[in-house]
Amino acid sequence: MELWYTEEQTEHVRLSLKVKEHLFSAKSDFQTVDVLDTYEYGRLMTIDGLVMVTEKDEFVYHDMIVHTAMAVNTNIKTALIIGGGDGGTAREIMKYKNIEHVDMVEIDKLVCDVSREFFPTISSELSNRRLSLYYEDGVAFMKNKENIYDLIIIDSTDPIGPGEGLFTTEFYSDCFKALTKDGILINQNESPVYDQFAKEAVRANQKLKKIFPIVKVYQAQIPTYPSGYWLFGFASKTLDPLKDLKAEDWNNLGLKTKYYNTDLHLGAFALPNYVKEKIENGNV
Amino acid sequence: MELWYTEEQTEHVRLSLKVKEHLFSAKSDFQTVDVLDTYEYGRLMTIDGLVMVTEKDEFVYHDMIVHTAMAVNTNIKTALIIGGGDGGTAREIMKYKNIEHVDMVEIDKLVCDVSREFFPTISSELSNRRLSLYYEDGVAFMKNKENIYDLIIIDSTDPIGPGEGLFTTEFYSDCFKALTKDGILINQNESPVYDQFAKEAVRANQKLKKIFPIVKVYQAQIPTYPSGYWLFGFASKTLDPLKDLKAEDWNNLGLKTKYYNTDLHLGAFALPNYVKEKIENGNV
Repeated sequence: MELWYTEEQTEHVRLSLKVKEHLFSAKSDFQTVDVLDTYEYGRLMTIDGLVMVTEKDEFVYHDMIVHTAMAVNTNIKTALIIGGGDGGTAREIMKYKNIEHVDMVEIDKLVCDVSREFFPTISSELSNRRLSLYYEDGVAFMKNKENIYDLIIIDSTDPIGPGEGLFTTEFYSDCFKALTKDGILINQNESPVYDQFAKEAVRANQKLKKIFPIVKVYQAQIPTYPSGYWLFGFASKTLDPLKDLKAEDWNNLGLKTKYYNTDLHLGAFALPNYVKEKIENGNV
Repeated sequence: MELWYTEEQTEHVRLSLKVKEHLFSAKSDFQTVDVLDTYEYGRLMTIDGLVMVTEKDEFVYHDMIVHTAMAVNTNIKTALIIGGGDGGTAREIMKYKNIEHVDMVEIDKLVCDVSREFFPTISSELSNRRLSLYYEDGVAFMKNKENIYDLIIIDSTDPIGPGEGLFTTEFYSDCFKALTKDGILINQNESPVYDQFAKEAVRANQKLKKIFPIVKVYQAQIPTYPSGYWLFGFASKTLDPLKDLKAEDWNNLGLKTKYYNTDLHLGAFALPNYVKEKIENGNV
């Protein structure tokens, strides 16, 4: 028998991966979580049928959502992760000795539990003593927080279902308040290729621009995400992701990364014309 | 009825596109060419069942295979295209007024004929009076040519079937001889993500390094190619793709490009660590 997992990336595009074994399936109050063992990408977690993370290419996403900010402000001490239940983002942050404390707010405990059981290399730092893990709604958690975090990472699902509130002006505004004076906000910012994703990418960017003085978009190649081409947002109170890159300081840390490096950091912000056109002019 | 085209990108990964209509199919002495009208990517040409070009994302490939070299040497006057039967590479080169003559050597006339009929926006410059079109084997064509071309672009299929001879040391060596003193060779260099492609990428790179003093690899996001992440090779006798970039000169030309720009040029050469590791150390 041949077993194939297929994601409908759009109504008209599907990515299929050959499966060795369907290892797990369960439904929480929020969503359905599955684990598949695939031939090409190793273990894969889906939420509501969409790829969240695979063993083979997770390093791209987690490198880019963490190190890009950490290399711009090498003095970050406190961070907040919204979402990120698989633990990959926490794992990358914990590589920094100067990180004193991280709060992580994942709405769905099931995602963490599944990652602990099936993705030990990704969830490895979820029990780090510098991490406080809250199984709460990120939107509610952000209310009435002031001047607490040097870095906020929105490691969310798409803006449909539980992730929806994490793409609102109100939420971004609460994040702004919760950040310290040189605070940086990073968000996963969808794909520029397919219209429905590109619209969300532009919308998130426009909302952030109303609140943060510095808002830039950067890119990475994540083969299992729709189109393989994914964007992130870098929003900041004072620091510019290019001018304020501390390349030498970061390289002196001697961190091992499989995707990120400081040359690539600069390149990641150099967007193709068609993406700039969409992001800067809102033409999708 | 629903009609879907599926490419087996690897034994374990498939990309499927929803099809409005199967417009054309024919077999030449070399390969089978099909044209599909797809919902997401517009018209699509396959060769032996693999995506060659789509209306929606062809601009990425053609921008990157042409402008990257043209911005490093803005005095290029003569160029050779090996393959490139759809005409997209010729179209981009013809944007430059200083180009005096281009030879194009496509082994399969059928590809050009199909592009002329079904892809008028891609094949638009195939009748340009500055272009000589040879329906010949590129490997044979390159024999005994000396000091003729400022630029050679290998716009080939994968190294299986008719494209195979275009990935050999002997062929690259003939290209080196055919290039003028500041000559540049560009080749499509496969994907770093899936092993069978990455092996070919490394092999081509290692062969080029035996012959050319300067060999660099650069990247682009092409959603319909396997993994969506594609590499190109830049091999050159004297010019470095980064140090010798003539950003101001190129921008003064005022060319309209949908993907390429001179910031992205620099970024395209900033590879992720895992790709550098494969390319530089041959670890696939």
